[in-house]
Amino acid sequence: MPDVTGRFDGARVLADLNALRSIGTYKSGVHKPTFSQAHMRSLEWLAQRLPDAGLAATIDGIGNVFGRTTKAGPKLLAGSHLESQNHAGWLDGPLGVIYALEAARVINSDPDARGAVEVAAWCDEEGHFGNFLGSRSYAGAVTEIDIDAARDRNSDRTMREALREVGLAGRERLHAEPGRHVGYLEAHIEQGETLESSGLKIGVVTSIVGIWQYRITFTGEQNHAGTTRMAIRKDAGLALARFCVAIDDSFPALCGQRTVWTTGRITLEPGAPSIIPGRAEMLFQIRDDDPNVIERLEAHLRRMAADVTAQGRCSIEVERLRTGVPATMSAAFQDAIEAAGADFAGGKSIRMPSGAGHDAQILATIMPSAMLFVPSIGGISHHWTENTADADIVTGARVFVETCRRLLAQ
Amino acid sequence: MPDVTGRFDGARVLADLNALRSIGTYKSGVHKPTFSQAHMRSLEWLAQRLPDAGLAATIDGIGNVFGRTTKAGPKLLAGSHLESQNHAGWLDGPLGVIYALEAARVINSDPDARGAVEVAAWCDEEGHFGNFLGSRSYAGAVTEIDIDAARDRNSDRTMREALREVGLAGRERLHAEPGRHVGYLEAHIEQGETLESSGLKIGVVTSIVGIWQYRITFTGEQNHAGTTRMAIRKDAGLALARFCVAIDDSFPALCGQRTVWTTGRITLEPGAPSIIPGRAEMLFQIRDDDPNVIERLEAHLRRMAADVTAQGRCSIEVERLRTGVPATMSAAFQDAIEAAGADFAGGKSIRMPSGAGHDAQILATIMPSAMLFVPSIGGISHHWTENTADADIVTGARVFVETCRRLLAQ
Repeated sequence: MPDVTGRFDGARVLADLNALRSIGTYKSGVHKPTFSQAHMRSLEWLAQRLPDAGLAATIDGIGNVFGRTTKAGPKLLAGSHLESQNHAGWLDGPLGVIYALEAARVINSDPDARGAVEVAAWCDEEGHFGNFLGSRSYAGAVTEIDIDAARDRNSDRTMREALREVGLAGRERLHAEPGRHVGYLEAHIEQGETLESSGLKIGVVTSIVGIWQYRITFTGEQNHAGTTRMAIRKDAGLALARFCVAIDDSFPALCGQRTVWTTGRITLEPGAPSIIPGRAEMLFQIRDDDPNVIERLEAHLRRMAADVTAQGRCSIEVERLRTGVPATMSAAFQDAIEAAGADFAGGKSIRMPSGAGHDAQILATIMPSAMLFVPSIGGISHHWTENTADADIVTGARVFVETCRRLLAQ
Repeated sequence: MPDVTGRFDGARVLADLNALRSIGTYKSGVHKPTFSQAHMRSLEWLAQRLPDAGLAATIDGIGNVFGRTTKAGPKLLAGSHLESQNHAGWLDGPLGVIYALEAARVINSDPDARGAVEVAAWCDEEGHFGNFLGSRSYAGAVTEIDIDAARDRNSDRTMREALREVGLAGRERLHAEPGRHVGYLEAHIEQGETLESSGLKIGVVTSIVGIWQYRITFTGEQNHAGTTRMAIRKDAGLALARFCVAIDDSFPALCGQRTVWTTGRITLEPGAPSIIPGRAEMLFQIRDDDPNVIERLEAHLRRMAADVTAQGRCSIEVERLRTGVPATMSAAFQDAIEAAGADFAGGKSIRMPSGAGHDAQILATIMPSAMLFVPSIGGISHHWTENTADADIVTGARVFVETCRRLLAQ
């Protein structure tokens, strides 16, 4: 029997994280796309651990895992996600889930602690099928029509097919109960170098940037790569390459200090070596915590696309897929994290914005929410070499549990 | 019973081409990747027609179809291919196969005609698994090790797996018998606008360009698209876009009059919207009938790659996958096509090089070979809208049959 009394156990946190790493292992990281076998086994692993923390486990109709208590008193919701990007790291997601599980194990069985921690693992934070579908479902922002329309970005399988295959079709989706929770707390690796390069241990997140995502489609004329003279070609792939370079050349003069933009995927159609691409597509993303900056950049993007289209060789269409509203973290929660950091991380904390999106930005629309970061070695994430020193993982967990205790005691 | 006496039948040619179009139909074209069900059904359809032309049918261990005669006298080999590019046209390949079948039907049963036409459908001219594997196998240029290494460029399925699935594994591969044929003749749609724009009906191919193909790989550093500042990124996708633009800006000053170059496929890894690509790859092709021009362009490509690599942000590797030696068509065969065109196409023919690669360039390494083109509407090919007027198809067939008769009579 595991020791589930009210004592923090850093070794248990590390053991749990390694147990999750052993499911869907890829090199030193994991490969757990949403609704893959490895992802589903990870959800079931969590569901089996939740009773140790006095929580009843449910996996709902969108793949969210919940651990709920019947204990009286205030309740804090805590969690993160268990699926990964393709061939990515072991901590992005699981760290926050296991911190939440540890907090629940420590606090829920402690007769001296006030209230209880409830645990959530939000499905598809990594966006294989959409845009924070799990946490947005909980917040009441996902309709059945949205689910009908969702598709796996890797395989084009529909979300309905995936839900049927993993046995979740037809299950109820659980929604937030107004007033049930005093708020939401999530831990995550920083995914940047700020903490590591300053020798700090805890990031107290002040805000989460907005992510605006676009599909940019280039239409030219598909033709034979041997018989079509250069002068008459309408090469959609070349138009795309020129557009990428034009973005990179012109955005710096218009962007903010922390703005970032990324072309993460390019597809040429039909994609054969002997065919001039007639159609090309890129997935493009802009992030900033100031929506005015993003609006300025989007207007510029649309102007450039219209200029190219007007020249008549290829046409460019800019379609916004996702509009990310920046989220502000609860000031009181930030104070609690900082105070816990003073007690258990020697005060080595810093307030900082998050450049990455997280489920906490969705939860922040329905309850006070906050996030705690731990250092990332080399700032690397979304790659299988992603890592954090064991000692930093344990320090972060200790601060997380203490933050939960403080928030419930208020 | 079909009429298989020694009379040319244009309606029969059109009916056969439409029968092949009805297998694996895609819009007004076809989708018949190599070893797909539609491709295999097309091979079987041909094998069933060959006896009408007095030919014994064989499908060999690499998917080549042969129709062989026991008739005495000179033998001419004629054919093309039956698989298609993905979602492509109905005539690219089948036209040459049906012309060969018609020539065999007309000539082989005619007691007054000298010799016989034998028919071949070469497997995988479109290069789903490699580089002219079918005709090169016949020419003795494909080893078992080459077949072991071949993979489907769409699915990454090995050629061995595909051969097993379609029931061809273990069959003998047929090779050219020295001295059996007086030469090889192939018909094809032009895939360009030269004939149509000049009101001509027959292209007499003088040479087939060399195709040099490259894999160009960009290595940067995979990282998070939200937390990694622009200044420190090593974005392999952006390096690729800049390289494409640099090629297009610098090649015109170095190329020949007919040189063409194409980036047909781009892949970013891992290909997710929230990840800075750590690796990117493009398939790049240069075509010219002068190897000196291509060598000059390749040297320039390698110099540009070395310059970017030296700057230290991303490294670029240029790997040549395919070295295409230009092929010269038989002068005597060209004369025969021209003479047949004078009789049956009102002399509306022109001598011209082929910008596209064809099996005839492989056959040209082992016997006198030649090609005949018919007009392409709008010059379009490798697209489902590819087409040729019925009257032009029939005229081309008539000229083809007459060319065969002349070559066998010599």
